[in-house]
Amino acid sequence: MEIPSKILENAVDEIATLPGVGKRSAMRYALHLLKSSDSDFAAFIGALTSLKSDSHYCSRCHCISDTPVCPICSSEKRNQKIVCVVENIQEVMAIENTQQYRGVYHVLGGVISPLDGIGINDLTIGQLIERVEREAIEEVILALPTTMEGDTTNIYIDRQLKQFPQVKVTTIARGIAIGDNLEYADEVTLGRSIVNRIPFERS
Amino acid sequence: MEIPSKILENAVDEIATLPGVGKRSAMRYALHLLKSSDSDFAAFIGALTSLKSDSHYCSRCHCISDTPVCPICSSEKRNQKIVCVVENIQEVMAIENTQQYRGVYHVLGGVISPLDGIGINDLTIGQLIERVEREAIEEVILALPTTMEGDTTNIYIDRQLKQFPQVKVTTIARGIAIGDNLEYADEVTLGRSIVNRIPFERS
Repeated sequence: MEIPSKILENAVDEIATLPGVGKRSAMRYALHLLKSSDSDFAAFIGALTSLKSDSHYCSRCHCISDTPVCPICSSEKRNQKIVCVVENIQEVMAIENTQQYRGVYHVLGGVISPLDGIGINDLTIGQLIERVEREAIEEVILALPTTMEGDTTNIYIDRQLKQFPQVKVTTIARGIAIGDNLEYADEVTLGRSIVNRIPFERS
Repeated sequence: MEIPSKILENAVDEIATLPGVGKRSAMRYALHLLKSSDSDFAAFIGALTSLKSDSHYCSRCHCISDTPVCPICSSEKRNQKIVCVVENIQEVMAIENTQQYRGVYHVLGGVISPLDGIGINDLTIGQLIERVEREAIEEVILALPTTMEGDTTNIYIDRQLKQFPQVKVTTIARGIAIGDNLEYADEVTLGRSIVNRIPFERS
């Protein structure tokens, strides 16, 4: 697609750097912004600029927060001795949506991935270990993705936590999703769900 | 999805105003921007701001252009007497991509749509009529979308052009796409393609 304006082309190229956005979608977004009113455009740019310059991270769990310590970390209703380790803010929101978890979080900001140039020092693993010691954490739940990078990160964190034998290290249950048919489940998940079977809950 | 930060929520809401972008995608884009380096972020915002404030429209065809008159309108290789009327800049790019058209364009900036509050004066129809007279245009090709709004706009433009009986008014051919199976074509298109049949091209 030949674009008749360098300015438009530049904007399309920048928008296409967003994850999963191709040139065609980027063009739609660019033309939408071009057509939008000055006040709408100012609100759009203002919200993004504010996101970048005014966002803070909770000093304890590293989740995005408008306050120095996030509402979850400062809540008296949450068990501050149980820490769930997640990759990103999205996972915090996903778990919060379930309303099933009453502990707190620790956001790593990624997983160890040498190919992407993400090492241990780019993540908040050091802060997690310090925190476990300082706050006398009782349980660390590993909820990282089941990828090679996630597994590597799990193993690294678990090794670091061995110096605190009183800390229980757990991981979220993996298995067949509720409502799913066994016939169509992938073999690895089905295999694990049999190996890691749990006592039947009598009602 | 409960978002733990008002600033993030505001950014997600603004990004979700882009056409076809839902909250979930908006969240991905927002977190991507939040994680991007300061220089990448500045380039992103700079390109959008420049798009909005530095973009110009060709004074003749109203297509986006970095020069007062766009390259197509100022090209000696194009037939300046044939004008193809399109809704938006995207259609100009789509037709240019075919490399089959050697005339010029007129970008309306939309189609007449009372429900969306788009009236005749929001479009460049007046400028088109003036241009046809001033530049002694010989042919106007209507290439608007085949929607009720597009048809209404076609009829309105055609009526306005009746005052210049020397101007030929045409419309782009609609029919079965090349390579498509008749069996699966929609009835309206197939019906029209039979009614508007053309002489067979002998090679």
